[in-house]
Amino acid sequence: MTDIAGRPCIICVAITGSLPTKTNNPAVPITVAEQVESTQQAFEAGASIVHAHVRNDDQTPSSDPEKFARLKEGLEKHCPGMIIQFSTGGRSGAGQARGGMLPLRPDMASLSVGSNNFPTRVYENPPDLVDWLAAEMVTYGVKPEVEAFDLSHILKAKAMWDAGQTADRPYVQFVMGVKNAMPADRDVFDYYIRTVHRLFGEDAPWCAAGIGPNQIVLNEWAISSGGHART
Amino acid sequence: MTDIAGRPCIICVAITGSLPTKTNNPAVPITVAEQVESTQQAFEAGASIVHAHVRNDDQTPSSDPEKFARLKEGLEKHCPGMIIQFSTGGRSGAGQARGGMLPLRPDMASLSVGSNNFPTRVYENPPDLVDWLAAEMVTYGVKPEVEAFDLSHILKAKAMWDAGQTADRPYVQFVMGVKNAMPADRDVFDYYIRTVHRLFGEDAPWCAAGIGPNQIVLNEWAISSGGHART
Ligand SMILES: [Zn+2]
Ligand SMILES: [Zn+2]
Ligand SMILES: [Zn+2]
Ligand SMILES: [Zn+2]
Repeated sequence: MTDIAGRPCIICVAITGSLPTKTNNPAVPITVAEQVESTQQAFEAGASIVHAHVRNDDQTPSSDPEKFARLKEGLEKHCPGMIIQFSTGGRSGAGQARGGMLPLRPDMASLSVGSNNFPTRVYENPPDLVDWLAAEMVTYGVKPEVEAFDLSHILKAKAMWDAGQTADRPYVQFVMGVKNAMPADRDVFDYYIRTVHRLFGEDAPWCAAGIGPNQIVLNEWAISSGGHART
Repeated sequence: MTDIAGRPCIICVAITGSLPTKTNNPAVPITVAEQVESTQQAFEAGASIVHAHVRNDDQTPSSDPEKFARLKEGLEKHCPGMIIQFSTGGRSGAGQARGGMLPLRPDMASLSVGSNNFPTRVYENPPDLVDWLAAEMVTYGVKPEVEAFDLSHILKAKAMWDAGQTADRPYVQFVMGVKNAMPADRDVFDYYIRTVHRLFGEDAPWCAAGIGPNQIVLNEWAISSGGHART
């Protein structure tokens, strides 16, 4: 699958997220077996990255490294060659527990580099935790996907790269449509792209994710603008 | 005093801030009497807005409404016509204590509308506190100055205006040069201005503040771009 410029289009599938339960959507995969099965379907349909959270048996978010280990094993077996990205986001755990799965050496992990508001609370990523997560990713050879909930997060990724806190050029995901953070604003989206190119080079890859009803909007914007899409 | 386009140039003086003590700078005014004297000097030199924090006797930040009341009284007497802006920032108090001086009906108050990182911690402005502070400002006829530590804060100000959470068109201050928040980046500064004009109209006023060594840089950028300057 290629984008309008003929480059390969990377589809990143977020199989579970941290919040939806089977009450919201009976199709949400919760157990590791369900997650592997669901990812395999997406993989066979062309997705090349899987962004994964894990869940407890009661469907609440988890950051249990043992669950991540079983998921990784299943994905490697059923989706050979697929890029595995684990979430270190704050909805699944607190403090350093968020990075407890990094020693498993997934290909990638999400990395929040700043704080912002969420619909009803503060999404807290204190500077010392950001530094620690980034250092763990360097230690275990895990490539970060920087979650940009706001513009300064892209500039922070640049500062961290300059300071040697990331091994490679940062790979940034724009997250739009979260209430009280950045809305799905087309002018801002275009400025995000210009900023990535200015800071990381004209060939720097990026991807975008829209939350809720903005998912389809962001997919269209991203694919038509040369970015990768999160579904 | 007029700017390069001949419009009146508003100088906003921040007389104390929340953190510096006399150990850092013996000239920092701490007592209410010192603050009034210092503001009067700035007023006579042309400043038209005063942005004020108050302090306890041991120089630590305070949000004591009684201190703010004495400050307002002194400023009204010695700086007639000067616009008085009180800080509701998070360095001087916690939760609703941050807005305890709003019933004094200052002309303006600072209003943070999102959260972000500071050099060593999270600057927390939870959504319900933001909503409460904005509502108190409407109740007491206080005009907010929205402190934009990041781009989404400008878009949030627009959403709040649309929702009737601010009485007038928002007046936005760009805050740049805070470590782990938005650096003093000229391209971003120019985009901030374009965003203010896009969302609030071509004639919308704005101001800018640079932290530490960035103060003089931001003053130059702001004055040469038609904004108001915080000194
Ligand atoms: Zn992605
Ligand atoms: Zn996620
Ligand atoms: Zn100002
Ligand atoms: Zn202040």
